[in-house]
Amino acid sequence: MTLHFWFDFASTYSYPAAMRIEQRAQERGVALSWNAFLLGRIFHAHGWNDSPFNLYPAKGRYMWRDLERVCEDESLPFRRPSQFPRNGLLAARIACRFANESWTPIFVRAVYHANFAEDQDIADSRVITGCLRSLDQDAETILEAVASGEAKTLLRAQTERAMNLGIFGAPSFVANQELFWGNDRLEQALKWCQSRSSTA
Amino acid sequence: MTLHFWFDFASTYSYPAAMRIEQRAQERGVALSWNAFLLGRIFHAHGWNDSPFNLYPAKGRYMWRDLERVCEDESLPFRRPSQFPRNGLLAARIACRFANESWTPIFVRAVYHANFAEDQDIADSRVITGCLRSLDQDAETILEAVASGEAKTLLRAQTERAMNLGIFGAPSFVANQELFWGNDRLEQALKWCQSRSSTA
Repeated sequence: MTLHFWFDFASTYSYPAAMRIEQRAQERGVALSWNAFLLGRIFHAHGWNDSPFNLYPAKGRYMWRDLERVCEDESLPFRRPSQFPRNGLLAARIACRFANESWTPIFVRAVYHANFAEDQDIADSRVITGCLRSLDQDAETILEAVASGEAKTLLRAQTERAMNLGIFGAPSFVANQELFWGNDRLEQALKWCQSRSSTA
Repeated sequence: MTLHFWFDFASTYSYPAAMRIEQRAQERGVALSWNAFLLGRIFHAHGWNDSPFNLYPAKGRYMWRDLERVCEDESLPFRRPSQFPRNGLLAARIACRFANESWTPIFVRAVYHANFAEDQDIADSRVITGCLRSLDQDAETILEAVASGEAKTLLRAQTERAMNLGIFGAPSFVANQELFWGNDRLEQALKWCQSRSSTA
């Protein structure tokens, strides 16, 4: 059974999830798929024009402190981004268009690291170019590929698929029809896959 | 260091937290205080006239399924209440006015059990009377006591205190200034208390 990892590059709690999911899944022998989507589109459908962490300041204040604790527990570097949420559209188009490439998980982690450990603006194509080059990928060709209408349509369809799966936040994990929401549900989602695989 | 447990009787995830917190705190040698409050008042301040689980159906659908899984993991009985959220005002006034009585944690658990395991209407004073009698408490005297202006003022002040602590959801756990939100943060909150007590 494959665990489908749904993430948004602006999403704070997707950062610790993205950094550890591959290793955790390998340890448990669970196959993984990487699914970038645009959470902002789903928020719009809720009538929100901004992150709920900005719309509800008490929730936002808590989240930043909580994320700091989570990263400390996971020994992950963390620097609060000076801008939130950042526009992850370009990165999401790449992760979506090249979802099945072997370098994609490394690219995803590089983008999260840029945003949440180095406070870099991931909306800036130079930052994304830097991430791609750090993996020895041909950044120009990739950026050209995702400027196409096809790549845009792909990401739009993927975000719609997220909505249809009942996804309303990130990170989310889906195994068959079973949905798990939040970084702190990763272990449970992996366990779910394991138990279903062994009884299947 | 005392861990302050903040709960709302209508709050779904407060149910598993209320059922296990006393035992977990005892195992770790952490002192506990029980703080009922009215989350609805805080939601009002956010501009919400209903639970976000009703306002955002995808979030609500997920929560019910997730709560079912959480209760299964904790071997807690669960029946989805036919009405949500239920009005926990009367129960909250009692838990607040009699916060320091030895029977209060047992009363709190009885009310949660009525709401989330037996689908009983905890807004009904007969249900609350039943909860109190099951603990051999003088229900009439207690109900009379919480009908006073003093008891109402106490709960109102407690809810305001919750807001001032930065609380925006339930269950919440507070140790000194440190806030933890959500049933799945209970273990972390207890660990926080332990580590701070041993280094103090």
